Amino acid sequence: MSQNRLAPMHTIVRQHQSFLDAILSPEELKRLSSKELEALAQEIRIQIVQDLNKTGGHLASNLGVVEITLALHYVFNTPQDQILWDVGHQAYVHKLLTGRRDQFGTLRQYKGLSGFISPAESEFDSFVAGHSSTSVSLAVGMALARDHLKQKHKVIALIGDGGLTGGMALEALNHLGHIQKDVLIVLNDNDMSISENLGGFSQYMRRIKETFFYKDITSKIDQIEDKLDELALDPKLVDLISSVKQEAKERIVTPGIVFEKLGINYSGPVDGHDVAAVIEALENVKGENSPHLLHLITRKGKGYKPAEEDSIKYHGVKAHSLEPALKEKPKQAGKAESKNLTYSHVFTDTLIDLAAVEPNLVAITPATAEGSGLVKFSKVYPDRFFDVAICEQHAVTMAAGMAKKGLKPVVSIYSTFLQRAMDQVIHDVAIMNLPVVFGIDRGGLVEDGETHQGVFDITYLRSIPNFTVLAPADAEELRNMIFSVVKDAPGPVAIRFPRDAAIGSDALVTGPQQFRFINYRNWEVVRGYAENHEGSAFKRVEVLAYGSMVDYAMQALPALNRAGVDARVVYARSVKPLDEKMLETVFSSNDVPVVTLEEGCLSGGFGSAVLEWSARRRSSVPGSAGAVVSCLGLEDKFIQHGARNLLLEETGLDVAGVADFIIKAAGVESK
Amino acid sequence: MSQNRLAPMHTIVRQHQSFLDAILSPEELKRLSSKELEALAQEIRIQIVQDLNKTGGHLASNLGVVEITLALHYVFNTPQDQILWDVGHQAYVHKLLTGRRDQFGTLRQYKGLSGFISPAESEFDSFVAGHSSTSVSLAVGMALARDHLKQKHKVIALIGDGGLTGGMALEALNHLGHIQKDVLIVLNDNDMSISENLGGFSQYMRRIKETFFYKDITSKIDQIEDKLDELALDPKLVDLISSVKQEAKERIVTPGIVFEKLGINYSGPVDGHDVAAVIEALENVKGENSPHLLHLITRKGKGYKPAEEDSIKYHGVKAHSLEPALKEKPKQAGKAESKNLTYSHVFTDTLIDLAAVEPNLVAITPATAEGSGLVKFSKVYPDRFFDVAICEQHAVTMAAGMAKKGLKPVVSIYSTFLQRAMDQVIHDVAIMNLPVVFGIDRGGLVEDGETHQGVFDITYLRSIPNFTVLAPADAEELRNMIFSVVKDAPGPVAIRFPRDAAIGSDALVTGPQQFRFINYRNWEVVRGYAENHEGSAFKRVEVLAYGSMVDYAMQALPALNRAGVDARVVYARSVKPLDEKMLETVFSSNDVPVVTLEEGCLSGGFGSAVLEWSARRRSSVPGSAGAVVSCLGLEDKFIQHGARNLLLEETGLDVAGVADFIIKAAGVESK
Repeated sequence: MSQNRLAPMHTIVRQHQSFLDAILSPEELKRLSSKELEALAQEIRIQIVQDLNKTGGHLASNLGVVEITLALHYVFNTPQDQILWDVGHQAYVHKLLTGRRDQFGTLRQYKGLSGFISPAESEFDSFVAGHSSTSVSLAVGMALARDHLKQKHKVIALIGDGGLTGGMALEALNHLGHIQKDVLIVLNDNDMSISENLGGFSQYMRRIKETFFYKDITSKIDQIEDKLDELALDPKLVDLISSVKQEAKERIVTPGIVFEKLGINYSGPVDGHDVAAVIEALENVKGENSPHLLHLITRKGKGYKPAEEDSIKYHGVKAHSLEPALKEKPKQAGKAESKNLTYSHVFTDTLIDLAAVEPNLVAITPATAEGSGLVKFSKVYPDRFFDVAICEQHAVTMAAGMAKKGLKPVVSIYSTFLQRAMDQVIHDVAIMNLPVVFGIDRGGLVEDGETHQGVFDITYLRSIPNFTVLAPADAEELRNMIFSVVKDAPGPVAIRFPRDAAIGSDALVTGPQQFRFINYRNWEVVRGYAENHEGSAFKRVEVLAYGSMVDYAMQALPALNRAGVDARVVYARSVKPLDEKMLETVFSSNDVPVVTLEEGCLSGGFGSAVLEWSARRRSSVPGSAGAVVSCLGLEDKFIQHGARNLLLEETGLDVAGVADFIIKAAGVESK
Repeated sequence: MSQNRLAPMHTIVRQHQSFLDAILSPEELKRLSSKELEALAQEIRIQIVQDLNKTGGHLASNLGVVEITLALHYVFNTPQDQILWDVGHQAYVHKLLTGRRDQFGTLRQYKGLSGFISPAESEFDSFVAGHSSTSVSLAVGMALARDHLKQKHKVIALIGDGGLTGGMALEALNHLGHIQKDVLIVLNDNDMSISENLGGFSQYMRRIKETFFYKDITSKIDQIEDKLDELALDPKLVDLISSVKQEAKERIVTPGIVFEKLGINYSGPVDGHDVAAVIEALENVKGENSPHLLHLITRKGKGYKPAEEDSIKYHGVKAHSLEPALKEKPKQAGKAESKNLTYSHVFTDTLIDLAAVEPNLVAITPATAEGSGLVKFSKVYPDRFFDVAICEQHAVTMAAGMAKKGLKPVVSIYSTFLQRAMDQVIHDVAIMNLPVVFGIDRGGLVEDGETHQGVFDITYLRSIPNFTVLAPADAEELRNMIFSVVKDAPGPVAIRFPRDAAIGSDALVTGPQQFRFINYRNWEVVRGYAENHEGSAFKRVEVLAYGSMVDYAMQALPALNRAGVDARVVYARSVKPLDEKMLETVFSSNDVPVVTLEEGCLSGGFGSAVLEWSARRRSSVPGSAGAVVSCLGLEDKFIQHGARNLLLEETGLDVAGVADFIIKAAGVESK
């Protein structure tokens, strides 16, 4: 692989960006020489590092695709030629080149540029891509459409080696190999997904590289041929040698034999940071009209030394976390400083403590060991930790197999990614009623935007028989909840928590002996009616808060008090089963309105579960109208990106929104 | 491949089953010679054909695995050694050998033996398997658990070439190749899944077979070696030749190179109907402690000539459909003869008619062309038909790519299998708001049992923004609904119908010009209150019936009349959006109770949607208690197998159950 020509940055160096200034659209790229493209690549790296220091974002992956992005726009005519990005967080360079440089400083900010590919932003973005492994399927669909519509253009799927571990990408490769349509797959192979990439396929590709770089068997075969030519051999033998040589050559010198066997032509590997080489490789395959995979080797974090050295750490960076450090880190609007650890952190620490006393506890993650904090577990218990790569389906069914054999598997998974394993959750875990614990991280709103919102889980999980669906109100609850269900639950349990600081984690007592069993099916009154309001003008309201909404309800109390509202706050640990005894208490007075609070979609969610119960109760207790129930949660639309606190505010799920909603439900005009 | 030694049956031949009578458990098998095992195989085939002629069931696939099943139980110590069946409908032979022969006549009958692998039935059944492609993941999980628990036994995943196209199986293979655990994969390669199998992988395996049977390159290489030995060559050249020969040999003579590249040892292909050869192949690999794939070639329908010749037709057979035909086909209890076509049939005919006037309409199926009836479409429009193999995820995202480019893709998919593509439905279709139409077949209860019940779709689909979720009440509605949404809908639409005869299809007017546009978002009163009951003692009730439940409600009218109940029946076409105008009418009198009817889970379903609306209305109209709402649907448990009419009866969703429910909701004591 060629050495990169420009030394990597160690710190951010501001310099004049003469080439980047001139690029208003991909058209301008085509006039540059390779040397100029190289200089442009360096300018782009500087821009990305500088801007991400302000906005935060996905650093390492974007530094890794600078030359690939330049080459794609150089060789192809975008947006006529369709580029499908897999996991759209590596599209920063693409955004800079397609008329969005001016807005780049608003990246990932509320109402600013999305951190992902976004068709709403630009005609150059043909498809959303937040989750992984979708690009080949999309490309196959578009290629079939193109041919049906008798259009002429190229369809290019860009996919990483991590994305290629996803079963869906393999389904698409398999289909493409069969239908032999004109699709170019550009494989960006940097040897890791978010965490270190895993799988036989990945090892195979590593061997391809070794073969390519350290052996040149072709030349060996040619040498043999030359030598044999000098000898006088039986013509039959010559034929035989020739046929074997041909087959051997084909098979040995084709590093992409697995792809070729599947019907996908293969070329590469090519140094993905050598822009001239990438352009040449793309030009070579541009004219093909059957499936082709071009294998490019890149390095995450390329050009920014700290990220090259630790691309996992620099996968996503927070604002103001890069060198040179700013003297003062400005606070994010509306976000209080918290000494609390995240729920992910508490989750992992809990598993580490619990594993010490539960020898059969194992932890599973589908390539989110970093984000979920589980990497810490993996260091303490490497033999009880399983990162299966971007394979949510396999992760869940593998866990089912483990549970059947008596292990206690805990699957750590983001809410949004669990959607990919819904069938496995039903078919392999729930029907068998196996004690698999799902630690559902990022349940609720996240800054990444619509592709990553974890808002459907309450609805679909509570519809599945045999499931217990919990949500902790704070750090201690999360800890004891995990302990209790691992000890006690006969079937599957989902424990859902937001991507946020865990309430009370600063004072959390930890250690393998520091667990308390909780009746996780029972709800709890965390705030009763104020006695001195008895008989007063204060309006009463029953507040049922699911999981993390308890904190918002408690924080809303002063506002309620000011408005003349007295709330009983019930911490609903469990949306399934419902605590029917507590519900009877809550609904015992028909005159006191009931409010449900959840950070999830209203359709079919926690509030809906309470309404179902209340309707059944009303049918069975004739004459009773039952209390008025008002449900606060997420309306029926996709939620954009932006800081979590801003999204909560927008959707009315922040403290002020919760207070307003309760006050209104209590029948008091909001101030 | 060896010729089978016993001629295939043309018809069912009854004969003494001396060997089968002696097999009470797999232990007895081990005493038989190969000749005796062959005779046993023939007896098993006769038993299966005879019994399936009474019960119906999966014929062709089970005839294909007779020898494999015998050999597995012969070589391994079940149930200590774990056999994981992929798609458990090929376990009939296994059931006969593991103590369930006595009950075999109750196969697939209500309260009888399940048609699938069922841990509830036998310790020999380690895991449910209804959906495809799960066995390798389960095996990986079990192998990891075995090693963690320091146990000693074999874990064997049996998978078909069809199952291997599922992304999840590929994820599992990839992971297994990495972790190198002791798992034996037995690949039952019969060249087809339910429909004809598709994909580059399948073609690759076809080529393996050709290579294996028609070429023997090893021997060629040996010939070269011998000849070269006779010549005096430079020692360096000899080394070179030797190293090339070694590589060439490894690569050329390894038909399973794709598997080997992924880290899975490969052996085969072996004739899967030669029981001695299969036993030998299994014995050879039994002692390995790293991943191994044994490739067996079988023929679906083996031994029963009609099924060998058309294994697709004989994939699943109905009772009394085999030769010799019985003189009189007994009616199934409680099931009326119907001249109506199935909804699947109407669906396909509609697509064929519509394709004539919609040149960009294309149809997609994930390996269910037969069951969905779409095979008929494929014959009329082969270029507009896409069977992507068992790849639900790819099917949905490919459709998204097509829709983005302007095609009008219709994805035909069973409700239960759509669970596997939930993330794709959200992430690739709904966020992009693309006009992909989902024809959701088998929505509701099906005879196959818990793994196949299509009961969660209403809940999870209505929670997804941008979706329209419809269900037709009869054949004409289905027809016009498809037409209307293909013409009109700006975003994704799900149309859900049961596995049943389509009401009114006997009188359906068809043809490309015979479509009528319907306002599919509007509900319709299909039966108003009887005027002559005005002021009488008749109790009124508002009935909201989702889709196919309209028919049940209408059939319940005489019973309601007898009970003194007068129902207004509203056909709710759409659970999303709700017809709020109609709901206002329905809820206009607070005193008339409302009943919702749906063939789906109650948690978060249609009734729940009505409750959510009603709660919002009540909050906004202070002082009104709103009508009492009673929801009929499926309770929170998995539903076993059995004839659809019996399952409907069991769950109270048959006509009598619906009548009772409405009468009770009306406040009248049921008689």
